[in-house]
Amino acid sequence: MKRTTIRPENHHQARLLRLLRDGGRSRAELGDVVDLSRSKLNLELDRLVELGLAELDGLAASRGGRRSSRVRLSSDTRFAGVDIGATSIDAAVTNGEMEVLGHLSERCDIRKGPAAVLGQAVELVGKLQHDGLFTQLNGVGVGLPGPVSFAEGVPVVPPIMPGWDRYPVRDAMSREFGCPAMVDNDVNIMALGESHSGLARSVDDFLLLKLGTGIGCGIVVGGAVYRGVSGSAGDIGHIRVDDYGPVCACGNSGCLEAYSGGPAIAREAVAVARAGESPYLAERLAEAGVLTGEDVGAAAAQGDPGAIGLIRDAGRRIGQVLASLVSFFNPGLVIIAGGVARLGHVLLAEIRSVVYRRSLPLATGNLPIVLSELGDTAGVLGAARLVSDHVYSAT
Amino acid sequence: MKRTTIRPENHHQARLLRLLRDGGRSRAELGDVVDLSRSKLNLELDRLVELGLAELDGLAASRGGRRSSRVRLSSDTRFAGVDIGATSIDAAVTNGEMEVLGHLSERCDIRKGPAAVLGQAVELVGKLQHDGLFTQLNGVGVGLPGPVSFAEGVPVVPPIMPGWDRYPVRDAMSREFGCPAMVDNDVNIMALGESHSGLARSVDDFLLLKLGTGIGCGIVVGGAVYRGVSGSAGDIGHIRVDDYGPVCACGNSGCLEAYSGGPAIAREAVAVARAGESPYLAERLAEAGVLTGEDVGAAAAQGDPGAIGLIRDAGRRIGQVLASLVSFFNPGLVIIAGGVARLGHVLLAEIRSVVYRRSLPLATGNLPIVLSELGDTAGVLGAARLVSDHVYSAT
Repeated sequence: MKRTTIRPENHHQARLLRLLRDGGRSRAELGDVVDLSRSKLNLELDRLVELGLAELDGLAASRGGRRSSRVRLSSDTRFAGVDIGATSIDAAVTNGEMEVLGHLSERCDIRKGPAAVLGQAVELVGKLQHDGLFTQLNGVGVGLPGPVSFAEGVPVVPPIMPGWDRYPVRDAMSREFGCPAMVDNDVNIMALGESHSGLARSVDDFLLLKLGTGIGCGIVVGGAVYRGVSGSAGDIGHIRVDDYGPVCACGNSGCLEAYSGGPAIAREAVAVARAGESPYLAERLAEAGVLTGEDVGAAAAQGDPGAIGLIRDAGRRIGQVLASLVSFFNPGLVIIAGGVARLGHVLLAEIRSVVYRRSLPLATGNLPIVLSELGDTAGVLGAARLVSDHVYSAT
Repeated sequence: MKRTTIRPENHHQARLLRLLRDGGRSRAELGDVVDLSRSKLNLELDRLVELGLAELDGLAASRGGRRSSRVRLSSDTRFAGVDIGATSIDAAVTNGEMEVLGHLSERCDIRKGPAAVLGQAVELVGKLQHDGLFTQLNGVGVGLPGPVSFAEGVPVVPPIMPGWDRYPVRDAMSREFGCPAMVDNDVNIMALGESHSGLARSVDDFLLLKLGTGIGCGIVVGGAVYRGVSGSAGDIGHIRVDDYGPVCACGNSGCLEAYSGGPAIAREAVAVARAGESPYLAERLAEAGVLTGEDVGAAAAQGDPGAIGLIRDAGRRIGQVLASLVSFFNPGLVIIAGGVARLGHVLLAEIRSVVYRRSLPLATGNLPIVLSELGDTAGVLGAARLVSDHVYSAT
């Protein structure tokens, strides 16, 4: 039996491992938080050490009596988190305490299909191995930019991922690395990352709004990701903003993404540049032949009024949809993340202004709306955390 | 100590009481579903009988060995459910198995304030007592037509309830009946009622849309009511439908309630009658001087095109908001309830058509959208169920 397929034997051991994931501690400290007799606690901890899942870590400071020995997760525990986007792959390796030991990022085109893209992901993780970050993984978590059947570990009719429908991503990655794998959509793993160590760390119910090529929402209820009955919860990109808006790729008109997705903003930027409303964007367009969301952000940072107008328009539409979701869900926090979020404080100000004006006062009274501080780390960290939840659950 | 304040002593007893709430059963059957040794199970059951919470109920059919004795909730267990609306009060009494033994309804005006309205509610429950349905209550659950701080049992800045802000409804009702009381908003108790014995009985994640004077949404996640961080989750009446709609009582324009709430439909009906677009409504208006939602329903039932148009317009706006919520929440079921829901299948057809067209296919693939079958029973049953959850939890 491979070492890495070892999992806790019962739910007491699983509970202890999850506690240790937040940091090593003394037996006495563990005894304070778990509902086990001292002898039963020591029995389970000894068994975790025997299984190679935990290890002893010296003696703790005395609390008055005999000094209690410290326990921590096995120091060679390693999880990998892989965050596959439409145009990039991020991969990171963490220890058992979810500290990121190394993080690499590469351009990539999701449309090349699962064999090529997963191959590139495996190579990227291989580089981290080559850097000496691990010899064997305990688990690998993967995020994908589309709907995922969480139970089966496969993408389901993902709109921007030709060739990926029902491809067995989880099983392929598990086989590749010889360890358990878990797959979820990119927005859910970002929400999990924010919940683990971002601004949402102490918030039970929150929303993570990802603004990029697509627009999606991670929903956390009672500290756990809520996926809905068919795994599509949070797919808000095609919520109607109005009936007479631009036609969307989905066939309806006036969808949020058709207004405020990355490509829509870039398209509008070209129109603004050609209309002579932005000297900065006109110059960039003449140089590069195309415009991107980053160009709009750079122009706005220089005070370009055309670019600022574009960002405000996008923010207003995002705010209108978010206001509805805030009234409905009454979250304790909203985090804005993703590429479009890099448009920064002009975007955030517009979103806030609409939400605070249009949502119920009771729902917004104590509601912070903030930009993510984790950036690209949220996804890889959430993916590693996702698989650690699985590995540290009773078999 | 009063008999009715007796609650289970530990979480095993609480679990057993909740199981028995779904119907009496043999000790052997209980042993199949709880994780207790036979001797421990019998100990806890004997203790519940001693406490007067359960009673023996003869012998079960043999399953091969010695016949197992049956246990049921104490046959004099009684819960009351009170559903206070803007213009009516419903009250019912159930036994421990949540069977409705009696149900009364009266007109009432919420604007008379808490002393008068709660006094009327107490009298209504008193009539049920006078009918011999109980001598003492084990718990009373109360639903109110506005935002409620669930933890404190008080309404919080309720818009249509002048004089009720922070009135101690829970404590007043508990003192009045000498038993535990719980208070929640009317939409949440309806959702709980549907979850207990309505169409949602086997659905973990669903939405209950209440269409009446106000419009609200009960949210059930994993079988439990989701209330949000400040208790306002599901307050969807002021979600924006469009920017240029009618001005709403809340100060914004284009809110859902300003289009599709009961009073908005009645107001539109008068306009349609006066414009000569509905002979039926014109006649009713001439007779009564006012029009109500019921008049619109009656006109539509006779094929009146003006009334059908009105219902379609209201349904379209409701559908637009519901489509967003379905994309976001990915529920397993949507139940439509409340007074406006009595406009029936024309309304339902329009709501369905918009949701099935505008929500994500993944979210609507297996999504039933149905009219409630419980009607006015949902609220009182949910209120009784709410307090029974409290009474059958460990102290």
